[in-house]
Amino acid sequence: MRLRAIISYDGSQFSGYQIQPGKRTVQLEIERVLETIHKGTVVKIVASGRTDAGVHATGQVIHFDSPLTFPVDRWSTALNVQLPRDIRILSIEQVSDDFHARYHAVGKTYRYIWSLSEIHSPFERDFSVHADRYKPDIALMQEAAQHLLGTHDFSSFCAAKTNVNDFVRTIYSINFEVKKETQQLQMVISGSGFLYNMVRIIAGTLWEVGIQKKSVESISKILSSCDRKEAGKTAPAHGLYLEKVAYGG
Amino acid sequence: MRLRAIISYDGSQFSGYQIQPGKRTVQLEIERVLETIHKGTVVKIVASGRTDAGVHATGQVIHFDSPLTFPVDRWSTALNVQLPRDIRILSIEQVSDDFHARYHAVGKTYRYIWSLSEIHSPFERDFSVHADRYKPDIALMQEAAQHLLGTHDFSSFCAAKTNVNDFVRTIYSINFEVKKETQQLQMVISGSGFLYNMVRIIAGTLWEVGIQKKSVESISKILSSCDRKEAGKTAPAHGLYLEKVAYGG
Repeated sequence: MRLRAIISYDGSQFSGYQIQPGKRTVQLEIERVLETIHKGTVVKIVASGRTDAGVHATGQVIHFDSPLTFPVDRWSTALNVQLPRDIRILSIEQVSDDFHARYHAVGKTYRYIWSLSEIHSPFERDFSVHADRYKPDIALMQEAAQHLLGTHDFSSFCAAKTNVNDFVRTIYSINFEVKKETQQLQMVISGSGFLYNMVRIIAGTLWEVGIQKKSVESISKILSSCDRKEAGKTAPAHGLYLEKVAYGG
Repeated sequence: MRLRAIISYDGSQFSGYQIQPGKRTVQLEIERVLETIHKGTVVKIVASGRTDAGVHATGQVIHFDSPLTFPVDRWSTALNVQLPRDIRILSIEQVSDDFHARYHAVGKTYRYIWSLSEIHSPFERDFSVHADRYKPDIALMQEAAQHLLGTHDFSSFCAAKTNVNDFVRTIYSINFEVKKETQQLQMVISGSGFLYNMVRIIAGTLWEVGIQKKSVESISKILSSCDRKEAGKTAPAHGLYLEKVAYGG
């Protein structure tokens, strides 16, 4: 049967999601545990997409097939007791045999977190990006973000290192929130899908608008240039969280 | 001149506060940076007290002496730029030459954090103790805590490994709070001072009351027995935070 799991991981100690020779990755750790549960039989997992080194997930989705017949509600515990503590299975359910975690994803939501506190808390050092002494103008960031909404060619917001041909994506929403209690600025972005490093380049570019290094008006020009060099710096990996993957139906 | 600093650290990657040969400790890292700032001259720091491996601090206090004459408000930055990111100087000020971080402390406040969420978040794994499937009765814990308030011989709540002779301490307050947003149970405890492992043994004992392994009434008996074996298990280090050190005057 095919199982779909929602998983969370602290990306700090991983060389990203996807298996790479000699590296500690999320996929490796989960497949290692599945192999143990299946008494030595390799079980491959498929995720909604990869995440880079340092990037976190609070709602990544994976699927895999298993011939085991124990009740579905035991799967989470069976995996969690053997997984390292920086990966947790949040829930798991049986899905139809043709479900595919990557091909059937119709949307994704990411969160990007900056710390605006004067001193970056040691407890947050891997979980938010410190603003140093910058005080971003959040209204400007929100205004600039409006120019990215809708369907566009996002070549300017895609890392050069990519092998896709189609750079057209749709962004449904970008919202900024200030969390007073933790002195964080959070950006929540939802779209049909995202190119390589696209969320981090958007975060970095909107940040530059916030600190008035770029103008609100520059965003449309950056988009239409289709030139990565026009956009801002790629924001650091450890501020980014894959929060939700949406499926149709 | 003598300087007093309030510091915060994530205890996860430290073998505790105090210098030990061949170990990474908070004291070692701070003294290493001070030595660099003082161009090779060793500068010893004195803390309000040590913390064990894994124990965190959000308000530890240290003092040290320096002949350097740059403005006091530059000290935090000078230290923070060189310190590892799991230690931060929160503030620093000049104090009188007879101030002593340990001898002059008149009270301390600690916080102990349990996670009551069904699955322990990977982001919290080193910062709270997971309750597993236990649902503690917090009213019972709060009631039991009342029996510990005031001045008592706390021998029953002191790890055997200690070299003090006087086991009498005063606890001013113990309060439990549930943080709905993070699904945490937090205990805040203030007292004149604490014996070795005393807060963790109190946390572990009150937890056992909460899960009804011990009765509320047992607390007074445990206290009067002056026998460590009567109290509950020592709660894990990574749930504990040194939050505040009080000084008179």
